[in-house]
Amino acid sequence: MTMAFDHLGIATTDGAALAETFAALFDAPVVHEETFDGMAVRFLGLDGGYFELLEPADDGPIARFLDRNGPGIHHAALRTDDIDAALERARDVGVDLVDEEPRAGAWGHDVAFLHPRSTGGVLVEYVQHE
Amino acid sequence: MTMAFDHLGIATTDGAALAETFAALFDAPVVHEETFDGMAVRFLGLDGGYFELLEPADDGPIARFLDRNGPGIHHAALRTDDIDAALERARDVGVDLVDEEPRAGAWGHDVAFLHPRSTGGVLVEYVQHE
Repeated sequence: MTMAFDHLGIATTDGAALAETFAALFDAPVVHEETFDGMAVRFLGLDGGYFELLEPADDGPIARFLDRNGPGIHHAALRTDDIDAALERARDVGVDLVDEEPRAGAWGHDVAFLHPRSTGGVLVEYVQHE
Repeated sequence: MTMAFDHLGIATTDGAALAETFAALFDAPVVHEETFDGMAVRFLGLDGGYFELLEPADDGPIARFLDRNGPGIHHAALRTDDIDAALERARDVGVDLVDEEPRAGAWGHDVAFLHPRSTGGVLVEYVQHE
């Protein structure tokens, strides 16, 4: 089972403006855009991974995150080639899961979140491409 | 000038325990440990980058972050082969800098932080290896 950095999920109230800033600063152009779960989602390509800008339309978890914390880093995503094995291992290690089974995430990828109370306050997403 | 994901800085009250959890979950072993600025700093190797666990001894910015926010992601670091050019570009883009000039960071690397008010609430560190 492989495990590698994939992306940093960032909650924002203005994804278009932040995408412009990040493109100028980090050579990170928008490589994919979609509306997912009522959010405008932008993936910005970076050598070795992505920034995922999450701009909520109205309510939902990211809107609540913005209300509570303001804009900023929301989660860290690790890429694996076997998300079922990754979740099985997390259970073995005694980590609480947000998602017991993989579900469809942005970009059509299978994703599953670990609960931050088990991972030092870091919300971790596993993602399997293809 | 190159720009790539380097590491995720994580504030923690128990770096040893979190390192053990991350090693078991993510195949991310401790590859470097040091005391820096009164903090226990652990770098965990991950395919494509590092986790940097920051455990403050007493006071300082990370201790204050923990008081305010609890444990979790503190900053995102991008690796560049020309930190002076990266800072110059940040100035051109109109981004506020925490560090006007590179300074010595953990692992002996040159580092400089951008102010999160200019980068969507994300505290960004530039780091140059060597």
